[in-house]
Amino acid sequence: MRIAVIGGLAAGPAAAAEAVRANPEAEVVLFEQTPHISVGACEIPYFIGGRIEQASTLEVLTPSEFEKTRGATVKVRHRVTTIRPRERSLTVDALDFGSVHEERFDRFILATGARAKRLGIEGEDAPNVFTLRSLDNAIDLKAYLDAERAHHVVIVGGGYIGVEMADELRRRGLRVTILTQTGRVLSKALSEDLASPVSEAVRARGVIVRGEVPMRFEVDRTGRVKAVHTDKKEIIGCDLVLVAIGLEPRTTLAEVAGVRLGKTGAIAVDDGMQTNVANVWACGDGIEVPRVLDGKPVYFPLAPVARRSARVAARNAARQGRGGRATFAPITQTIAVRAFGMEIARVGVSLNEAREAGIDAVASSVQHWSRVKTYPGANPLWVRLLVERGSGRLLGGECVGQEGAALRINTLVPLIREGYTAQRVRDEVDLMYTPPLAPAVDPLLVAASKAAKAAIRRSR
Amino acid sequence: MRIAVIGGLAAGPAAAAEAVRANPEAEVVLFEQTPHISVGACEIPYFIGGRIEQASTLEVLTPSEFEKTRGATVKVRHRVTTIRPRERSLTVDALDFGSVHEERFDRFILATGARAKRLGIEGEDAPNVFTLRSLDNAIDLKAYLDAERAHHVVIVGGGYIGVEMADELRRRGLRVTILTQTGRVLSKALSEDLASPVSEAVRARGVIVRGEVPMRFEVDRTGRVKAVHTDKKEIIGCDLVLVAIGLEPRTTLAEVAGVRLGKTGAIAVDDGMQTNVANVWACGDGIEVPRVLDGKPVYFPLAPVARRSARVAARNAARQGRGGRATFAPITQTIAVRAFGMEIARVGVSLNEAREAGIDAVASSVQHWSRVKTYPGANPLWVRLLVERGSGRLLGGECVGQEGAALRINTLVPLIREGYTAQRVRDEVDLMYTPPLAPAVDPLLVAASKAAKAAIRRSR
Repeated sequence: MRIAVIGGLAAGPAAAAEAVRANPEAEVVLFEQTPHISVGACEIPYFIGGRIEQASTLEVLTPSEFEKTRGATVKVRHRVTTIRPRERSLTVDALDFGSVHEERFDRFILATGARAKRLGIEGEDAPNVFTLRSLDNAIDLKAYLDAERAHHVVIVGGGYIGVEMADELRRRGLRVTILTQTGRVLSKALSEDLASPVSEAVRARGVIVRGEVPMRFEVDRTGRVKAVHTDKKEIIGCDLVLVAIGLEPRTTLAEVAGVRLGKTGAIAVDDGMQTNVANVWACGDGIEVPRVLDGKPVYFPLAPVARRSARVAARNAARQGRGGRATFAPITQTIAVRAFGMEIARVGVSLNEAREAGIDAVASSVQHWSRVKTYPGANPLWVRLLVERGSGRLLGGECVGQEGAALRINTLVPLIREGYTAQRVRDEVDLMYTPPLAPAVDPLLVAASKAAKAAIRRSR
Repeated sequence: MRIAVIGGLAAGPAAAAEAVRANPEAEVVLFEQTPHISVGACEIPYFIGGRIEQASTLEVLTPSEFEKTRGATVKVRHRVTTIRPRERSLTVDALDFGSVHEERFDRFILATGARAKRLGIEGEDAPNVFTLRSLDNAIDLKAYLDAERAHHVVIVGGGYIGVEMADELRRRGLRVTILTQTGRVLSKALSEDLASPVSEAVRARGVIVRGEVPMRFEVDRTGRVKAVHTDKKEIIGCDLVLVAIGLEPRTTLAEVAGVRLGKTGAIAVDDGMQTNVANVWACGDGIEVPRVLDGKPVYFPLAPVARRSARVAARNAARQGRGGRATFAPITQTIAVRAFGMEIARVGVSLNEAREAGIDAVASSVQHWSRVKTYPGANPLWVRLLVERGSGRLLGGECVGQEGAALRINTLVPLIREGYTAQRVRDEVDLMYTPPLAPAVDPLLVAASKAAKAAIRRSR
C-alpha cells in the first residue's frame, strides 16, 4: 500500500509517522512545497523577538532526520497540484527540477493546513507588509527588522498572534500600535471583565490599541508602506505592518478532488477523519472538527488538535484489516498564550457561542490569588466560568493572571468533557493546596462555588 | 436546634459556618481549647522561615471576626471533656475561668483533628524538641530560634513537613540533618526515580539526609538535647530537634462517647459524615475517608479534604427536613509541596497501595520539559503515571520539576475520578500549548502515551 501525505508543517509529519507505525508495510510519502517540514509555528514570535535565537531550532526535524527516524519518505520542494483519488494518482511539481510528473498512491491524507488571512486592501503587497505563518515568513520578517531601521510597527489584529508579536516587538524596542475592530485585544478569547487586567498590562508596556480598521496602506516612492489609513479617517505613520487577523484553511487541492467543505469553509470529515471521497482522509489546520458541547463542527486551527486529528487520519488510512477504526474525540477548544507578563487561557465555549447553540448560560467571575495571599509573590488570578442555567453544567472557562492561569485551564478540560456541574466541581474535585502554589481554596473552586450559586439564581 | 462543633483549627470553623448557612435558625457553638481558631497550619513553615512575617496572618479570622461574619458563637479556651449524645449534653471546661459546666446540645460535630506523632523515646520532652501542629508550637519554635543561637537542627522525618522545614531552616542559615528510615526524603510520596531530582536539590542546599532512626536524645545539664543517638550507634550533636513523623487523629472524646474508630485508627463515618452514634457527625483530620480507587477508608489529614468533609457533616447535622442529604465524594489523595526550588506533587494511589488492593499495576516515567525546550527557562519535568495492566486505567501520578509540576497534578484529578485510561488521556484530552508554558505535547500526554504502551506490554 502506498500512502501520500500532502503538507508537511505539523499535521503532515505526525500523520506520516503514525501511518508507518500503524502499518509498517505501507510505503508512506510526505510531500511539502517549502524546504521545511515539522515546523514549530507557535515558536515564531519568540524567534522574531530573539528569545529563541536560531531559526534552525524551529525546524523540529530536518527532512533527512525525519526519514531516518520515522521511516517515511520526505519530498520537500514538491508541490502536489492535483489528486485523483479514483484513479489512485496525483500530480506533483518538483520545484527544484522543473519537472511535473504523476505518481500512483492508494490512499491520500490531506494535511494542507491553513494560510494567514489577508485584508485585501490597497498596498497590502508592499515588501514591508508581513503575515506570519511559515518559517520563511518569519525569516523574512526577522531579516527585515535586522536590516532596516524600523521604528513603528502597526499590527492589524489583536488576537493571540497579534498580542504575542506586540510583546516581542516591544522587546526589540519598536513602537507598536495594534488595530482591532473592538478596540481591545483578545476580544474573542476573553470576556470584558477578564480582558481588563490584560489590557492594562499591554498599555503599561506602551503599546497603543486602537479600535480602527485599516482601509488602505499608503506607499512611498520605493513602494513601501509609510502610513495606514483607517476607517476613522486617521492616518497612522509606520514603517512596518504585520497582518495577523487569523487563519483560513487551504482547500483548493481538496475541492478539485471533489472533497466536500463544511459550513466553516474548512474540509469536512467524519469522526474517523475521512472525507466524503473514498481513500481520502484529512487532518490538521485545513479541517473542521466537532466540539464537545454539541458535536457541532468548528474551525480551530491549533497544533495539539491538528496533531490529534493526524493520528486518527493516519491510523484509519494505514490500517488494512489491522486493529480497530480510530475515532476522533470532540475538542474542548483549549487555548493559552503568555504575553506582557500575563498568562491568558480559555477552554470550552463563550457566552455567545452557548447562546447561539440555544443554551441558557450564565457566567460569573472571581478575582482570587495565585498563592496563599500572605505568601510572597502571590498575584491576583481571575477566573470566569460559564455554566448552564439551572443544571450548572460547566460549559467554558477563562483564566488570567501573572502565574498559574494557563495550567489551571487544563484542569477544566476533563471537567467540561465529562459534563461536571459547578456544584460537583466544588464538592468533589480535590485540587492540590500548598501556600507557595495555591491558596487554601483554589481559585477554580472559588469560581465553581460562585458559579453554582449563579446557576440556580432566577433568570431576570 | 443547638449544634455543638468541637475543635476550631480548620474543619471546625468550616463546619460551624456551613451549619449556619444550611440552617440559619440553628444555634451553632464552636468550642476550641486554644486561643486561636481558623489557623492556616500549612503556612507554619513559612512563618518560621520568615517568608510570612506576622503570626497574626496565620489566623485567618479571629474569634470575634468569625462570630460577626459567620453567625456562629465561638468559645475559645474552652475544652470539651465529654459529650453525651444520648443525654444531649456535653461537659466543657472554661480554661480561663476554672469552671466546668454542662451544656445542652441536640447535635454534635466532632472536628477534634489530629496531633503530631511522637517518638516515645528518652529526652523527647526536652524544651528544645519541637513538633509542629498548632500556632502555639510555631510561635514557641520561632521564639526559640530567635532567642537562642541554634546552630544545628536534626529533623526526624523526611515527609512533606520535614522537607519544607529543612528548606526554611536552611534559609535561616542553620545546619540541617534529616533522619529518615529509608535514607531518602518523601519516600512515601515519590517513587525512587522521581525522588532523585528532589534528593539532588536537597543535597545541593547542603542538607544531610541520613537513613537512621533516633533511639534516644541525650540532654545536657540544663535539660536540653545536645545529641541524638541513632539505631546505627551514631551520635549526632545538635542544639534543636524537630519531630515531624506525621499526624495521628485525636479520638479520645469520640471514643468516650461510644463512637467507633475505623481500621486506620481514625473516626469511622458513613458517606454523610455521620458516626455510628445518633446525632454525632465528624469531619476534618480526625476521620478516615474513602478513596476513589475502591472506596477503602484511608487516613489523609489535609486541609482541602478536611474542609470538604466539614461542609458535608455540617449540612447533614443542620438540616431538619430542609434540602437533601449531602454525601462525601471519595478522595483522590491530591498533595503538593514546594521546597528547595522544586515542586513535588502526587495524586491517587502508589504502586504498593494498588498491589495491596489486588490490582496488577504498572508504572512508567518520562522526563520531559516544562516549556518548549528551546524557550528560555525551560526546565526538566518528570511525570510518572501508574495504570492498571491491561486496561490502562489511570490509578495515580507523580510530578516533579522546578515549575508547572503541581498544577499539572490537578489535571489528573478528574481523569482519575472518571477512570480514564492512559490511551484516552493521550487521544482525547486537549491540553493547552504555548511555548512559554508547555511543550507542543504536554509532559502529561507524553507520559500517558508511554503508560498506554506499558499497560499492554506483557507482564514478566
